[in-house]
Amino acid sequence: MTAGGRADVVVVGAGVIGAAVAWRTAQRGLSVVLVDPAPGCGASYAAAGMLAPVAEAAYGEETLLGLCLDSAARYPAFLAELRGACDVPVARTSGATVVVALDGDDLRALDRLSDYHDELGLPVRRLTGRDCRRLEPLLSPRVRGGLSVEGDHAVDPRALVQALLAAGARRGVRLVRRSASSLLVESGSARGVRLDTGEDLTADVVVVAAGSWSGPTGPLGGLPAHLVPPVRPVKGQVLRLRGEPGPAGLTRTVRGWAHGAPVYVVPYGDGRVVLGATSEEMGFNTDVTAGGAYELLRDALALVPGLAELELVEATARLRPATPDNAPLIGPTAMPGLVLATGHYRNGVLLAPVTADALAGFLATGVPAGEVSAFSPRRFSATAQQVSR
Amino acid sequence: MTAGGRADVVVVGAGVIGAAVAWRTAQRGLSVVLVDPAPGCGASYAAAGMLAPVAEAAYGEETLLGLCLDSAARYPAFLAELRGACDVPVARTSGATVVVALDGDDLRALDRLSDYHDELGLPVRRLTGRDCRRLEPLLSPRVRGGLSVEGDHAVDPRALVQALLAAGARRGVRLVRRSASSLLVESGSARGVRLDTGEDLTADVVVVAAGSWSGPTGPLGGLPAHLVPPVRPVKGQVLRLRGEPGPAGLTRTVRGWAHGAPVYVVPYGDGRVVLGATSEEMGFNTDVTAGGAYELLRDALALVPGLAELELVEATARLRPATPDNAPLIGPTAMPGLVLATGHYRNGVLLAPVTADALAGFLATGVPAGEVSAFSPRRFSATAQQVSR
Repeated sequence: MTAGGRADVVVVGAGVIGAAVAWRTAQRGLSVVLVDPAPGCGASYAAAGMLAPVAEAAYGEETLLGLCLDSAARYPAFLAELRGACDVPVARTSGATVVVALDGDDLRALDRLSDYHDELGLPVRRLTGRDCRRLEPLLSPRVRGGLSVEGDHAVDPRALVQALLAAGARRGVRLVRRSASSLLVESGSARGVRLDTGEDLTADVVVVAAGSWSGPTGPLGGLPAHLVPPVRPVKGQVLRLRGEPGPAGLTRTVRGWAHGAPVYVVPYGDGRVVLGATSEEMGFNTDVTAGGAYELLRDALALVPGLAELELVEATARLRPATPDNAPLIGPTAMPGLVLATGHYRNGVLLAPVTADALAGFLATGVPAGEVSAFSPRRFSATAQQVSR
Repeated sequence: MTAGGRADVVVVGAGVIGAAVAWRTAQRGLSVVLVDPAPGCGASYAAAGMLAPVAEAAYGEETLLGLCLDSAARYPAFLAELRGACDVPVARTSGATVVVALDGDDLRALDRLSDYHDELGLPVRRLTGRDCRRLEPLLSPRVRGGLSVEGDHAVDPRALVQALLAAGARRGVRLVRRSASSLLVESGSARGVRLDTGEDLTADVVVVAAGSWSGPTGPLGGLPAHLVPPVRPVKGQVLRLRGEPGPAGLTRTVRGWAHGAPVYVVPYGDGRVVLGATSEEMGFNTDVTAGGAYELLRDALALVPGLAELELVEATARLRPATPDNAPLIGPTAMPGLVLATGHYRNGVLLAPVTADALAGFLATGVPAGEVSAFSPRRFSATAQQVSR
């Protein structure tokens, strides 16, 4: 079978965002081709899958927080629908999140987060060190305080991508395991992509969902400079552990600061645990380093000492697609036919439902979705060349 | 081809010891079959390959030290001969070893080792912290003192096993990639082994070189209880790093104590570095654990902070075959035809030349080799049942 051909929509990149957009768009009756040489092997492969808008809330990013809360609220129905649409099981963890602090400085960081939650009216409960250990007995006796965030859950991102791909395939999404090497442009409009095989995939719309490879150093040539998304890679290293499943394990996601270093520990409830993550500006380097692994283990063991007994099964580094304002690029660009769904930085898994819903609606109706209007790629178009590195 | 058959000698276990014994014995004109389901994949696969009898010298183990020094002295000629006997390159590192101490307690441990070296007349040079960094600029500014051991080198154990297997094959050693499930005994004498295929491999002599699997929980049934070697597994976890080759890297093996924890860092001179090792009584468990990796990284980075930048490429756990007196079991047993070459604990790579030379001589001439007489398996035969666990 040829890898070329034509479709209504070509989606470049089959991570959690591209796979979700493809599935949702195919549900609207459009023909969709999804192009990726290694589906689900980018940032989605490393992600811990926290659905944690409240615990992750950051000053000055209230607009993004709104989008994150919107997407988190969509998750239960999104997963329920996905479960009905394929045979790949994807569960949301039933536990909540506890945010903890180890020393005085960590407590002050916790205070600031807690004050911010209060300002925004977010439902969070302040905990003493003893409260923390009552909730989660595996926490270190050195934990001095915390926050309980009942609404923040997690999902296994690898299972999620596989489910989205399977659901898409059932809806007729064609997966082409090749790289898109350049955008096809005709009379100023995007008209598809050229594959690394040299074949052309023509389409009315091209959705770029290529994560860090959406940016100026990505493979997708043919974009006018002012349209290249201002996305840069931010390396994250994570470790995966495995213990006995059962009640002796961690039941909640633990986030926090260990002597100033932010760290998270995400249990999936079946013995698997993810520790993350470093945050490094290292270009496209994806080496797992001795120092990265050391810091993750040091900080996670400081919060949850009993993790030392668990098997270390994997060390992975991948690239978060960051933007100048830490918010994603979702929607049409100045070039007709060229749509972005990228730059989701730390929030790709969390933002998949709202991104996919919004774009599928736009692709089916031509009407841009209001819920993502603040995240239009056009907000950077005047300055794209300065901010892209 | 059938896996059964007959030979003069069957060697059970193709780690560094078994492979060396097989090669040396075949050089003497005997026909040899080497039996191992996964050659070189046991303790030899994890070993760092330090040839470090002086830096590793331990109180009360002078007899073992003598054997280690004897074997270390054989290494240059052994490797030279091996290089001529196969196409697998095996280099000894050109650098020496520096033993370092970080805090006051570590310095006292260093003093005790240094005093012991003086007592034994071993050629070691005492260093200040500044001396240490002059020798090896990558050492931490916190290193407070050390010892320079010029005679202690290292060899890549994986390359060594491959070279020994290749050299053996050239000499006609037949490698059978199966498990030996039981010893064949006839009129009270060992007469070969039965394979897990059910086939018999008959031989005049059976050499058990199965490392931790030589002991009471190993697969080799058919041994009378008083002849089961008192070998137990001691788990060791090691990490492998990779950096740029070149003069910026570590040039010497660094051993030492980091706040009481012993650790070693072995550079192979081509950018590869091994960090080791934990020492755990965990039966046959070979999980790499979060806690094991954490401690190795913590201690190695405390001595050589710049290792943090190196890529973490592998985490491995394997089982050292330990004996009640930490010394190996080399030579004939009370059962005619049954010979041991096992229990080398921390010193398998180092002791391969002397073990192989001694056993090949014995197998070819019937005269036990004087250099290993103190390591006869018979020293435990009266108490074998008590000491085996």
